[in-house]
Amino acid sequence: MNRTEKIILGIDPGTQILGFGIISVCGPKMALCDLGVINLTKFDNHALKLKHIFEEITALIDKHHPDEFAIEEPFFGKNVQSMLKLGRAQGVAMAAALNRQVPIAEYLPKRVKQAVTGNGNASKHQVAVMMQRILGIPTLEHKLDATDALSVAVCHAMQLQSPLQGISSNSKAGWGAFLKSNPDRVK
Amino acid sequence: MNRTEKIILGIDPGTQILGFGIISVCGPKMALCDLGVINLTKFDNHALKLKHIFEEITALIDKHHPDEFAIEEPFFGKNVQSMLKLGRAQGVAMAAALNRQVPIAEYLPKRVKQAVTGNGNASKHQVAVMMQRILGIPTLEHKLDATDALSVAVCHAMQLQSPLQGISSNSKAGWGAFLKSNPDRVK
Repeated sequence: MNRTEKIILGIDPGTQILGFGIISVCGPKMALCDLGVINLTKFDNHALKLKHIFEEITALIDKHHPDEFAIEEPFFGKNVQSMLKLGRAQGVAMAAALNRQVPIAEYLPKRVKQAVTGNGNASKHQVAVMMQRILGIPTLEHKLDATDALSVAVCHAMQLQSPLQGISSNSKAGWGAFLKSNPDRVK
Repeated sequence: MNRTEKIILGIDPGTQILGFGIISVCGPKMALCDLGVINLTKFDNHALKLKHIFEEITALIDKHHPDEFAIEEPFFGKNVQSMLKLGRAQGVAMAAALNRQVPIAEYLPKRVKQAVTGNGNASKHQVAVMMQRILGIPTLEHKLDATDALSVAVCHAMQLQSPLQGISSNSKAGWGAFLKSNPDRVK
């Protein structure tokens, strides 16, 4: 691996479907390494779901050796029981990273959307289209469960490159500023 | 270790104080192995709290080699943000057990209280007094942050010994039935 290359694992954790996206970042270039979902609907037992999340995230870390782990922070408004279950799923995924000494970063969904599309209220479809452009891949529209996770990884890559600009929800910058300073990113 | 002995780690997870209690169980006899709290108030960063929980629970498991891990299920009524944080803390603690292949059991707080005191609405003080009697130790009243965790371990021991009686919240049995069938337990 190039010493300046970083691998970032992005996670969009849910209690039914957990999306993941892995990118490699080298200077201003980003490339897709892996993308997919962990399907939890087949488990009717909550503890088995948590076990499966821990094992699958650990397997992803052992396969791709990410330098950074980025996860969406909660969005609010659900009931307390579903939030507790979501929190457990997130906690287990984060523990898999902690167990392999991978640093964790968290981003609010609005911040991720703002960073990658310039619009904090962008749709999943808009996020997917922007991921295609940033990563130079033909289509992701049939993988909407995973593109949010990918966008968290891309958001974190932008944050690492330009920590002083663009990703805070108070900022006007985001994707627009990023694009301007990285014109070679979009194919 | 006696082949019939089981070690049970009970956890009462919070985001400020996480209580733990470890007992050994051999036939109808239970004995205290360890009891204490993990103080999380010194961490102002949520991710550092989670890291500390994971490391401390892993250290407890590596020290005591529990056969079983028992944790309190959520109680409801808090706001969604605090429930998500509590869920993460629980998820991280559960992942520490999963990572060492320790099976996990969960109990509602009401079920634990019903099992160990005969009253699902017992106070922390009443639970502590019953723990003293069951485990034959002089006083636990100054360790109320940890006695709930201990009671989860004791509840799980009762459940393992008598899975068909007493611990379901629909049952009339609980500590009363347990005491009747285990008269040698209380000193």
